[in-house]
Amino acid sequence: VTVSAAESFVPVPDERVGALGMTCVRVQGYGVSLVDGLLRPGDRQLLDAIGDRRALVVTTPTVARLYGAALRRVLAPAGTRVRVAVMHSGEPAKEIETVLDVCAAAQEAGIGRRDVLVAFGGGVCCDVVTLAAGLIRRGVAYLTVPTTLVGQVDAGIGLKGGVNFAGSKNYLGCFHAPEGSLVDLGLLRTLPEVELRCGLAEILKMALVRDPDLFALLGERGEELVRTRFAPDRADAEWVAARAIELMLAELEPNCYEDQTLCRLVDFGHTISPALEERSGHRIRHAQAVAIDMALSCEIATELGWLAPDACATVLHTFRRLGLPLFHPLLTADVVAAGLHGATAHRGGELNLVLPTSVGTARFLVRPEDLPASAVAAALRCLRRRAR
Amino acid sequence: VTVSAAESFVPVPDERVGALGMTCVRVQGYGVSLVDGLLRPGDRQLLDAIGDRRALVVTTPTVARLYGAALRRVLAPAGTRVRVAVMHSGEPAKEIETVLDVCAAAQEAGIGRRDVLVAFGGGVCCDVVTLAAGLIRRGVAYLTVPTTLVGQVDAGIGLKGGVNFAGSKNYLGCFHAPEGSLVDLGLLRTLPEVELRCGLAEILKMALVRDPDLFALLGERGEELVRTRFAPDRADAEWVAARAIELMLAELEPNCYEDQTLCRLVDFGHTISPALEERSGHRIRHAQAVAIDMALSCEIATELGWLAPDACATVLHTFRRLGLPLFHPLLTADVVAAGLHGATAHRGGELNLVLPTSVGTARFLVRPEDLPASAVAAALRCLRRRAR
Repeated sequence: VTVSAAESFVPVPDERVGALGMTCVRVQGYGVSLVDGLLRPGDRQLLDAIGDRRALVVTTPTVARLYGAALRRVLAPAGTRVRVAVMHSGEPAKEIETVLDVCAAAQEAGIGRRDVLVAFGGGVCCDVVTLAAGLIRRGVAYLTVPTTLVGQVDAGIGLKGGVNFAGSKNYLGCFHAPEGSLVDLGLLRTLPEVELRCGLAEILKMALVRDPDLFALLGERGEELVRTRFAPDRADAEWVAARAIELMLAELEPNCYEDQTLCRLVDFGHTISPALEERSGHRIRHAQAVAIDMALSCEIATELGWLAPDACATVLHTFRRLGLPLFHPLLTADVVAAGLHGATAHRGGELNLVLPTSVGTARFLVRPEDLPASAVAAALRCLRRRAR
Repeated sequence: VTVSAAESFVPVPDERVGALGMTCVRVQGYGVSLVDGLLRPGDRQLLDAIGDRRALVVTTPTVARLYGAALRRVLAPAGTRVRVAVMHSGEPAKEIETVLDVCAAAQEAGIGRRDVLVAFGGGVCCDVVTLAAGLIRRGVAYLTVPTTLVGQVDAGIGLKGGVNFAGSKNYLGCFHAPEGSLVDLGLLRTLPEVELRCGLAEILKMALVRDPDLFALLGERGEELVRTRFAPDRADAEWVAARAIELMLAELEPNCYEDQTLCRLVDFGHTISPALEERSGHRIRHAQAVAIDMALSCEIATELGWLAPDACATVLHTFRRLGLPLFHPLLTADVVAAGLHGATAHRGGELNLVLPTSVGTARFLVRPEDLPASAVAAALRCLRRRAR
């Protein structure tokens, strides 16, 4: 049953994950549920989602250190039927070798066609497990339990798996929908502040192109949400997360397999950022590069007369207040050119640059030849100056 | 446009491949065309199918040796836009590393989202390219040009990619439909006789469960078809190939993604054979193992009273006349048990053993517990004796 995202925020009964969720947004047959207390001793939400299948729960060293004991405790009633594997993590681990490590662990654990993988980690863990689940027996079920804010509002709730390959970002991957995603804001309690700000960047991405109210709220309360680590008992934390998830899924839903259009609002901030990330050897975090890309896109939109200068200033001011980078010395003209070129290749010959037209709306610049090099150069100069 | 296989054998106009084909069977939006003279100097069928896209044509050392010069000649008008890569071949090369070699060559050749791969080789080449195409940019288009009879009637015209992994056959793979398959019987002129007999085994597989007339025709003319190497000017060669393709696609069509049922007639001969292939270190060819599996399945069906003894004798006699193996010393009781166990895991807990009930019809033995060990042991004894 597919319920469009527009009907969301009504608790939707779902035979597998729905019973768990306070809030359940459904897209293309899978549900993203805001849940609570997944790792509380005796909690059965994860076990109930797994059911009577074999499962391999894949996590990362950091999550294993923080939550490994609690995770094993809630999974213990399943005995050896549910196993835990720890994969390498971080952007450098977003490679096919990590996917194959997970596949080997799954094969070892006897994961068959009707069994299930669980990604219990950040965005890279979810990306890797999605691809592994897509490959095993030509596609087995999987669940995601994103443990970072970026994962909870973006990387861990979609249906795309992907790894970098031969220097090309996400050159290999698949579309493979999860059975469900369980989002527990309580897991953010231990998340480093910089990672929370990265999550804010991804939420701001959606707000900036779709929701002026969400943008305004983040401008006012974002810093406090970071300080209180999105404590799940805060109504605003839950509202922000749920709204971000709803916006994300509403964008994905009509074009899940990207076969309808390669013009995607969720690509905002994702045009130049891959080249910047790559140039930095992934020392610049994904969401930081996204923030810088969004800042440059605002400047380009202003240069082209699509965005009012004061709206641009408001956006960049908000980014700065929330501790997000606007610029990086590695953002040179040739990195920008490489980003534009790479995106055009990835988007089938079209650039589809997302440019804000106000706080909350955006348009696409479709054809690469419609973006004058002079406007890009001027935007880059402005941004460099403003970021000083 | 999906035209069911029942409407096939009418030349179907198709914007991309149809213009080429004498016979075009369509399934799930892709067409399998029987074509002629693909490598004739100046022939444009392959170039027309590629269109104005970049392409990476993947072939194997043997095909490159026999047809490399002719292939490069017909592709030459496209210049550097169409490149040729040679991958390792054979069952041992059916592994993820070969897939990644193809992906690396594609990345090097600048293959992007709207470009195309071409598998120009046998079944393993088609399997590997299908998976590579499924992974690159989360799925790019591909064409298959199977160069073996097994490829032309079975492995090269489906939509499954797969490789062996960690000792499990086809543990990793994907469903990814080709844009089209071009079947040129002329390429069989150079095929070793043993490979032609392997192709016959896969055709007999479909005939035995679906088409008594095809089975009878193969019994009468199969040896001559092998001797004349399916020369495309022979009406019976074309008829046999087209009918085999039609039967195969008719089975695939309603259940392309195997999400409707795991009871598949095309799995006939594919239950015990993976274990036998593996035990032999792939010295027994895939289709030879399939023939042995079919022979044992006939004996099991006879033991269970599902198949009349004289029908069983007819089948095994035909196999023997066509130079197909009925037995191999490695087919021990424990290999049979491993095969039954592996199939049950792959088929989600059900065995779904395909057993002939006459020459041309079959039924499934669904539950593993419904197959008495004594019947398997007796069947194995009979087969061993009969094969002496």
